[in-house]
Amino acid sequence: MAIALAFSGGLDTSFCVPYLREKYDKDVFTVTVDTGASLDQTILSTLSRKLGAVKHVHIDARESLYEHYLKFLIIGNVLRGGVYPLCVGAERVVQAREVVRVAHEVGADAIAHGSTGAGNDQVRFDSVVHLLADGMQLITPIRDEGLTRQDTTKFLLDRGFEVSEKTTSYSINEGLWGTTIGGKETLGTTEPLPDEAYPNTASPKHAPEAGIDITIQFKNGLPIALDGENLPPVELIIRLATIGADHGIGRNIHIGDTILGLKGRIGFEAPAPLILITAHRELEKLVLSKWQRYQKDQLSDFYGMLVHEGQYYDPVMRDIEALMISSQEVVTGSVAIRLYKGNINVLGAESPYSMFDTGVAIYGEESALWNGRDARSFCKLNGLQGYLAHKARTKT
Amino acid sequence: MAIALAFSGGLDTSFCVPYLREKYDKDVFTVTVDTGASLDQTILSTLSRKLGAVKHVHIDARESLYEHYLKFLIIGNVLRGGVYPLCVGAERVVQAREVVRVAHEVGADAIAHGSTGAGNDQVRFDSVVHLLADGMQLITPIRDEGLTRQDTTKFLLDRGFEVSEKTTSYSINEGLWGTTIGGKETLGTTEPLPDEAYPNTASPKHAPEAGIDITIQFKNGLPIALDGENLPPVELIIRLATIGADHGIGRNIHIGDTILGLKGRIGFEAPAPLILITAHRELEKLVLSKWQRYQKDQLSDFYGMLVHEGQYYDPVMRDIEALMISSQEVVTGSVAIRLYKGNINVLGAESPYSMFDTGVAIYGEESALWNGRDARSFCKLNGLQGYLAHKARTKT
Amino acid sequence: MAIALAFSGGLDTSFCVPYLREKYDKDVFTVTVDTGASLDQTILSTLSRKLGAVKHVHIDARESLYEHYLKFLIIGNVLRGGVYPLCVGAERVVQAREVVRVAHEVGADAIAHGSTGAGNDQVRFDSVVHLLADGMQLITPIRDEGLTRQDTTKFLLDRGFEVSEKTTSYSINEGLWGTTIGGKETLGTTEPLPDEAYPNTASPKHAPEAGIDITIQFKNGLPIALDGENLPPVELIIRLATIGADHGIGRNIHIGDTILGLKGRIGFEAPAPLILITAHRELEKLVLSKWQRYQKDQLSDFYGMLVHEGQYYDPVMRDIEALMISSQEVVTGSVAIRLYKGNINVLGAESPYSMFDTGVAIYGEESALWNGRDARSFCKLNGLQGYLAHKARTKT
Amino acid sequence: MAIALAFSGGLDTSFCVPYLREKYDKDVFTVTVDTGASLDQTILSTLSRKLGAVKHVHIDARESLYEHYLKFLIIGNVLRGGVYPLCVGAERVVQAREVVRVAHEVGADAIAHGSTGAGNDQVRFDSVVHLLADGMQLITPIRDEGLTRQDTTKFLLDRGFEVSEKTTSYSINEGLWGTTIGGKETLGTTEPLPDEAYPNTASPKHAPEAGIDITIQFKNGLPIALDGENLPPVELIIRLATIGADHGIGRNIHIGDTILGLKGRIGFEAPAPLILITAHRELEKLVLSKWQRYQKDQLSDFYGMLVHEGQYYDPVMRDIEALMISSQEVVTGSVAIRLYKGNINVLGAESPYSMFDTGVAIYGEESALWNGRDARSFCKLNGLQGYLAHKARTKT
Repeated sequence: MAIALAFSGGLDTSFCVPYLREKYDKDVFTVTVDTGASLDQTILSTLSRKLGAVKHVHIDARESLYEHYLKFLIIGNVLRGGVYPLCVGAERVVQAREVVRVAHEVGADAIAHGSTGAGNDQVRFDSVVHLLADGMQLITPIRDEGLTRQDTTKFLLDRGFEVSEKTTSYSINEGLWGTTIGGKETLGTTEPLPDEAYPNTASPKHAPEAGIDITIQFKNGLPIALDGENLPPVELIIRLATIGADHGIGRNIHIGDTILGLKGRIGFEAPAPLILITAHRELEKLVLSKWQRYQKDQLSDFYGMLVHEGQYYDPVMRDIEALMISSQEVVTGSVAIRLYKGNINVLGAESPYSMFDTGVAIYGEESALWNGRDARSFCKLNGLQGYLAHKARTKT
Repeated sequence: MAIALAFSGGLDTSFCVPYLREKYDKDVFTVTVDTGASLDQTILSTLSRKLGAVKHVHIDARESLYEHYLKFLIIGNVLRGGVYPLCVGAERVVQAREVVRVAHEVGADAIAHGSTGAGNDQVRFDSVVHLLADGMQLITPIRDEGLTRQDTTKFLLDRGFEVSEKTTSYSINEGLWGTTIGGKETLGTTEPLPDEAYPNTASPKHAPEAGIDITIQFKNGLPIALDGENLPPVELIIRLATIGADHGIGRNIHIGDTILGLKGRIGFEAPAPLILITAHRELEKLVLSKWQRYQKDQLSDFYGMLVHEGQYYDPVMRDIEALMISSQEVVTGSVAIRLYKGNINVLGAESPYSMFDTGVAIYGEESALWNGRDARSFCKLNGLQGYLAHKARTKT
Repeated sequence: MAIALAFSGGLDTSFCVPYLREKYDKDVFTVTVDTGASLDQTILSTLSRKLGAVKHVHIDARESLYEHYLKFLIIGNVLRGGVYPLCVGAERVVQAREVVRVAHEVGADAIAHGSTGAGNDQVRFDSVVHLLADGMQLITPIRDEGLTRQDTTKFLLDRGFEVSEKTTSYSINEGLWGTTIGGKETLGTTEPLPDEAYPNTASPKHAPEAGIDITIQFKNGLPIALDGENLPPVELIIRLATIGADHGIGRNIHIGDTILGLKGRIGFEAPAPLILITAHRELEKLVLSKWQRYQKDQLSDFYGMLVHEGQYYDPVMRDIEALMISSQEVVTGSVAIRLYKGNINVLGAESPYSMFDTGVAIYGEESALWNGRDARSFCKLNGLQGYLAHKARTKT
Repeated sequence: MAIALAFSGGLDTSFCVPYLREKYDKDVFTVTVDTGASLDQTILSTLSRKLGAVKHVHIDARESLYEHYLKFLIIGNVLRGGVYPLCVGAERVVQAREVVRVAHEVGADAIAHGSTGAGNDQVRFDSVVHLLADGMQLITPIRDEGLTRQDTTKFLLDRGFEVSEKTTSYSINEGLWGTTIGGKETLGTTEPLPDEAYPNTASPKHAPEAGIDITIQFKNGLPIALDGENLPPVELIIRLATIGADHGIGRNIHIGDTILGLKGRIGFEAPAPLILITAHRELEKLVLSKWQRYQKDQLSDFYGMLVHEGQYYDPVMRDIEALMISSQEVVTGSVAIRLYKGNINVLGAESPYSMFDTGVAIYGEESALWNGRDARSFCKLNGLQGYLAHKARTKT
């Protein structure tokens, strides 16, 4: 039998290949699921073979990531704690799902991943594996045996494998929805990350003085074109990320709650989601009723929490997605955005379903629909319950 | 008997003074409630007398505005539609409340304001007057008779009053919590406001290249010091507004729902609330539990909606305030912020109640509190319901 | 041109026929929309003709009422204030919608209804008419002229029409979803309605000692069979109402908030909804995840509020319905219920999607899925955030 | 050093006394926390001594249970799944808290309880012990070693202890807030519990034909008197339980989610909470604004969930309690209730803060506060956003 190993090519998952072969005496299939990191397929494949894997499988899951996860993070305008676009949470679910699929295909009877016992990733991976690979063994050496970098390095060197000397200050996770940065300053809460910790974005200071104006077109709540050019969503997100990175967009730090209940701090750079959500939210303001926005916002915060916590497969998520999709029926139109040295500013928005332009309403003056007498009556009755409550509380 | 008139010195309320005297043959008291606008008390007083008022009353309500309203907008991190800090809604309630108080003091039997029949202000004014001045007559000539600027101008000129020629392109409302700008571009949704429409803030482009770092100290969720200097809240807000304005902070445009149900677009510049809320939210992330943040966020959106809609006196607002105050027990500490050409970035935060620094948790590695075996068990049971739901839905 | 009049055959709408003809000199079409009241079509038709209407239209809207409204009140387990199944709110929307449809068909240019200016019905009727009959005149004589029963009686007698002498103590509204009873005791809050005020149900005291056991089968959250017999939903509801009435089920009194903001008290008897919701809720507990139930409950309370308040056409209602429908995917199975002298008790429930019977879980003992060590670890980590919060708040 | 053992006198905790002495060679203190069960202190004390405990401590925690837990379950009208009044969840937290207190007092360095690894109680106990007895050892033999009734029985018999032969069909948990019943029928979902499974209540069938009317008086949301007689809350609850039991009140079955994520079914009889909540909810309808009720209901469902799940110490609970307390400011008055063969019916309610009797509103007719013209205007503007949304979605 065989083991399917979620493989990133880093120290921990590299260690797992020979370790699993030795300990379990099984074939190891390495599976790399591309969710937007800059991964060199050839290098990973060569590394996998060198480490003794029987086969390396590379899966481009970026479209799937968009279709099943990012789509709803856009519709929900999901920013954890008001700032963080959930760069990692959704990726792990897709990665786990794809590893399970490969495991089934190659006839593996076990699945392994290299997560530690402290973070969020173990919870996300495990929950998917339990659910979709019921009956398969789940092997997690780093966590189960509490291995350190020293342990895994020694294991590899002892067996004659090279281990990169580059001891990075930061642990970086790149993906389609942004890059997270952990380490050093993020181990406390008082210091910002230095400029050089951000791998892909310019700092606002060094962004071009000119700035740039762009237009994003949405259909049913989802981006379909950039500056008039129709693009598949993955391509559109990549382009936005590039443009945003040039203009110093999307850097920030977030303190959140890990699934286990700890506080954790993380840096990130995520130009594309921040631009998309700013634009999408503006378009919604034009076309949704007050209560549509209100209820979707309330549920989207919850939805983001459950994605973060690896509860993507709870059926409540499908229910909320149904509400989200329904709400986007009229979220069609275009939004003009200015990017300037870290700032994202809406210039304007338009939609065929705009409630602003119904030929009826004139803001700041009266309308053909009602007159001052109507308004006066409305004011009186609109405040009636507050009036009665006050009266009931002050009568004697 | 007499009429107490909410008086801003603008065209509409200037018109009201002679109009009310003529029509109702009563003394008119003008009442100006300062909620942070740059008002010249002497000019207003002189104008009031010229227009024929029996007396002008000037009330500084900025502390009251802070104490009863802004405080909770900070605690709730209230930004309508994710961006707009409710610059105007709370002011109107305070203004109405103070006018009612004066009306009672001077023995008036009627209250007048100059709102039109289209906007939000009429609803806010009326609800407070009905509630707190039950039995007094409410007079609103502009609304009830559908008067235009032409009508009121003519009325004043006919009686020999001067009318300022300055026909401003924009209607500006200044207050402690920010300035709103309406007119021209905001009558549609596709164009941004030009730089010159913003009266007090520098544009990010013209803000100093150097930027500035500041530190705000909070106690129980409320700001008490700036860069180590203890300041009364009104003073602290004014200082932040000035610093923020220099650095191009807080300009934006918002599309929202008016109380009557229309869509309305408005420009604003509000450096102080945006800086304060950014800092406050960060501090909360350090010290609140996940569910504290979640429930407060959900309620705060509702709270902001009811402030906006002039429902401040609904007793549910007192209930939510009780929850808010309870949640802030540990929101004490300081937050360092960088302002740079329109950007507000958190540098770091610390608190004696930090859940980050309990001597227990180490993010990214294991902790003394649990080991990998515990974590594995947690992952299994944490996903149990999702697992069962999946099994129940796929069994055959 | 012509007027379409919502016609119940009562005093107020009878008055409207000759009144509208005289005042507007137009043809009057009377429209009766049957939503479950015991209406005699022939009597209404004769009455309409006698009163001078040009034509009487009778519409059976019970299926439509079920399909567009009651369905969601079942899925949402909607009971206002924990007790009242919204007997009237949905009916009025259907009635208004059908009257508008007839108005368009007969080429009317005006729509009339007989609501007063105090209650909820005017709001529900008006909102639908404004929305679906934009441009048509809306005529509401009773409200607009503040007419009393004396006024309308005199008008009819003056013109030689008979007016029934029967001055009922209670105002009764019958419909498919239950009957409401207003008057006398409900004008205060301290007295119950006497037994004889309830027109259709037996009092628990007089219900048969034997009681009865029934079984209801649901598919996707909706009732499809009673005691094994497949029935169309309207028929099933009528049967349940009859059985429940015999056993003293569904009488109660409710104090609620009218749309205008007043408190109102109302008696009702609604056996069918109370039995259906009790059964439906039990089935849901078997098959929904905790969070599915939680989120649907929260939204259903809001949904019921907006149905009550005549906001059925706000698009947020469609969004919530989408969530509701999604949640019912597995709400299929049967529920056994005992009715006994006013009590509704669940005997048992079963579903092919039961999460109770997955072959995995044994309640009260351990399971194959985990052991005591796992449980201990789960307990430790499940309480971690509470532990850290406590530690942070008590450290010194 | 010593071990403090939560002691009920049942098989499992009886086993623990000699087991802990043998295995850990420490003194064992047995602690029984009375939360309303019918416990004979002398019998428990004798049993404890026989089993070898160094001392038995008996604590009456009923007032504390009321003060810190039940109070909020009344204010929140908390019924899990619409029916179950959380009879057990709160008790366990109080019991754990008191055992910790005793452990500190007697200088114990370990705490033990007899929960299994499957149910909810372990989670509740553990979370409190971790939080309040940080550093103490937590010993749970039944769970950790997966012991069965056979195991523990044999252990006791082997050492010469008597073990009661009475193998009950049901596992009963009695407390101030009700009695839960598990076993046999509740291990499936299709069968009801038989009459004889309910230990304390009469079946509706055998309840007296006469029924009984009672009046409960509330102050700030809490019951203070029964039929005019002031009673301490614990006494009042006991009286209500007795009266309700006579009249067949409060029996039911509930299917819920265990903290681990399983579905569990349980029978219960809880007359007092069901009567109190019915009365309390009615009084609230008289005096709270619509939004007060709405927001409290939403939060109370969440509050009940966290009590159930042993998260009582999450600080969000204190925040919600603050909101609850604020909301009860005017929930003062009396409610008359009829109990008849299982039915609880409200007869009437009154309050000095009633919003029904403000001298203003007349339900069903017009009021001095507004006329038909006002109502018409309100209807028009109240529906404006729905109208505009419809127009925007249908324009072409």
